[in-house]
Amino acid sequence: MQPAAPPVITFLSDFGLDGAAATCRGVMISISPTAQIIDIAHTIRKFSIAEGSFLMAASLPYMPVGIHVGVVDPGVGTDRKPIGLQTARGDILIGPDNGLLIDPAAALGGIAKARALTNRRLWRSNASSTFHGRDIFSPVGAHLAAGDATFADVGDELRPADLVTLAPPKPSVELGLLDTRVTYVDSFGNVRLAGSLAELAGALGALSDLRPVVIELPEAGVGGVVEETRYATTFGMVPRGASLVYIDSLGHVAFADNQGDAARRLGVRPGQRVRIRPGA
Amino acid sequence: MQPAAPPVITFLSDFGLDGAAATCRGVMISISPTAQIIDIAHTIRKFSIAEGSFLMAASLPYMPVGIHVGVVDPGVGTDRKPIGLQTARGDILIGPDNGLLIDPAAALGGIAKARALTNRRLWRSNASSTFHGRDIFSPVGAHLAAGDATFADVGDELRPADLVTLAPPKPSVELGLLDTRVTYVDSFGNVRLAGSLAELAGALGALSDLRPVVIELPEAGVGGVVEETRYATTFGMVPRGASLVYIDSLGHVAFADNQGDAARRLGVRPGQRVRIRPGA
Amino acid sequence: MQPAAPPVITFLSDFGLDGAAATCRGVMISISPTAQIIDIAHTIRKFSIAEGSFLMAASLPYMPVGIHVGVVDPGVGTDRKPIGLQTARGDILIGPDNGLLIDPAAALGGIAKARALTNRRLWRSNASSTFHGRDIFSPVGAHLAAGDATFADVGDELRPADLVTLAPPKPSVELGLLDTRVTYVDSFGNVRLAGSLAELAGALGALSDLRPVVIELPEAGVGGVVEETRYATTFGMVPRGASLVYIDSLGHVAFADNQGDAARRLGVRPGQRVRIRPGA
Repeated sequence: MQPAAPPVITFLSDFGLDGAAATCRGVMISISPTAQIIDIAHTIRKFSIAEGSFLMAASLPYMPVGIHVGVVDPGVGTDRKPIGLQTARGDILIGPDNGLLIDPAAALGGIAKARALTNRRLWRSNASSTFHGRDIFSPVGAHLAAGDATFADVGDELRPADLVTLAPPKPSVELGLLDTRVTYVDSFGNVRLAGSLAELAGALGALSDLRPVVIELPEAGVGGVVEETRYATTFGMVPRGASLVYIDSLGHVAFADNQGDAARRLGVRPGQRVRIRPGA
Repeated sequence: MQPAAPPVITFLSDFGLDGAAATCRGVMISISPTAQIIDIAHTIRKFSIAEGSFLMAASLPYMPVGIHVGVVDPGVGTDRKPIGLQTARGDILIGPDNGLLIDPAAALGGIAKARALTNRRLWRSNASSTFHGRDIFSPVGAHLAAGDATFADVGDELRPADLVTLAPPKPSVELGLLDTRVTYVDSFGNVRLAGSLAELAGALGALSDLRPVVIELPEAGVGGVVEETRYATTFGMVPRGASLVYIDSLGHVAFADNQGDAARRLGVRPGQRVRIRPGA
Repeated sequence: MQPAAPPVITFLSDFGLDGAAATCRGVMISISPTAQIIDIAHTIRKFSIAEGSFLMAASLPYMPVGIHVGVVDPGVGTDRKPIGLQTARGDILIGPDNGLLIDPAAALGGIAKARALTNRRLWRSNASSTFHGRDIFSPVGAHLAAGDATFADVGDELRPADLVTLAPPKPSVELGLLDTRVTYVDSFGNVRLAGSLAELAGALGALSDLRPVVIELPEAGVGGVVEETRYATTFGMVPRGASLVYIDSLGHVAFADNQGDAARRLGVRPGQRVRIRPGA
């Protein structure tokens, strides 16, 4: 007989690697002893809600259905609400009402129901005002994972339309120009952009391998950068050290250096503007 | 039927992220295959017994009762003893006799019994002289977790009074002055100090929110720093970028910048002296 | 009754800590819900096949028999093969055919059988061309761990002699000289070298504790470094801050500073030449 699958809790924070995330894990396992806890990331830029949201949205579709705790929470201790979002796929996302969880919920099919975490019986007793990851989000998530609370138990229902949202960058597409922004720079220095394959094709026309492309980065480096490069399906189609525009494994437009760090070489940072044009 | 809770092993070291801690985890899981292993931290400053002790003491009260392995061990291969400490709460702490485990044991109710890990049948065969984490501490901890050895089996009893201790800083309190030291700088740059709420109130009087406070850091920055700030219960009570004195989630006096890195801004390091006075 | 030991999957990559390795873990747990997944390391130098191979070979002998996924894959998306190697010990190693897995397989007793991962039914559907860790290596490894595929199912058999190999440095030994290279610099700054105790003794003669030894590093620092040091069995035999030549916990020749960072002090990097001679 197969043992039943243990409950899954994923966890993302900006807590770093010095014990705060582990403390939350201890709280979770105290409540849900058999849980499989998957740390998505804890080393994102401090207080970067956008970066946390990007990484949760990027990874959650590959996680089992479960409880997903996200804590990037510059407003901890203020009146921002702790919330839970039930998704169309059946997951429950737990975290602060600051926009962090909206894109991740969309990546799991969208928000089916939203609740404020007002039921203090699911919190740690004597919750602190500076560490809600440990005192609210982890115990509520773990009680849900353990099955000793249902989503209806966590607190009052909220209207999804009342949730705080971020304003992720949207690309502008016209023939001959994709005007967009950097959404994320990954640990390889690959630069992820707002925009899809269809939007890139809408701007550039047919995307045959190795066709020339120009990237303009008016805010990168010193005084901006213009990079003549090529579109390619795989890194190996361009020489080692050469750059390419490609569709990343999430379906986003991206550019990179084959076996190099394009973001460092060009001075690229999240949020910068990027214009992509056909090359000559 | 609920499955039985798997045994819990927590693990802190200064091994970094390049495989040594994972090797220990492999040894543990080879002996205790169902264990829930919680990595508290492996990136603390090399050889910093004080930092390891602080983080274990800070996180263990939030962990399930279990086996807690700590390895910050500059004396590996010398005649410093490998030890086990049974706590009042029922945990067993495993590590070197260099002071690392004393505060963590106190945080779990104090030492009930101490033993030297003299029983080599619980070690890996052919134990090295440079990697006791892998060869002594991990296997002994895992045998205890798996239940195939009891605490009495690990070796000879020691008198707790004979254990090596650290000398953690103690604050001096008088009306108008808390004279203390930095115990830890966390990954946010928040500065944790020796001292409690009661000691801070003993020095400053009533701790109403936003009352002015002066921090003197004679050893920080270049030639010392004087910071005029405020006491506040939560970060959100002061503007973004402003500093505050607060009681951290462990009950210690601390200061920080709201959404900033106070330690970097002011040049603060662990061990530095800090004087806190009433502000004007 | 003891519960059955969960399947073990170990995982090494150069993905960093920002979500890609966690995404792979999500894929693995979706397929093999009870697996014990051990992250060996994800922070090695990007694209460093040699470093990944060193760390897998160093840690796998301490892991339970299981599935070992290694992804350092600069050729992702080219025609380099995804492969599986069954070892004499009974493990299966999964990763790219670029030399990464050869030394790790040797550390587990050698390659018993090799296969190409040609069975796309064990891949994720719509595998990307840039993230085979997520789309090929993780799902194939997890199906093997879960027992819903056998090694014969993964794909066509390969001749081990046809696999891509690395050329790890080999020491040259003569009386009075061990001429070798740096294989790895660990997070303590300890410098691991190609060569064994027998080879060191072949060059230096009897290895009594504290006998003088000279290390020549012609490519380190500025214009090379000559370091007069001593052989010692344990770090504690030399003063704090002093250097020593020793046999590391894997059986390799190494040198280090007791409680210091020898690699940083001397400017040592992986691959550099090292000559060890008797001292005066």
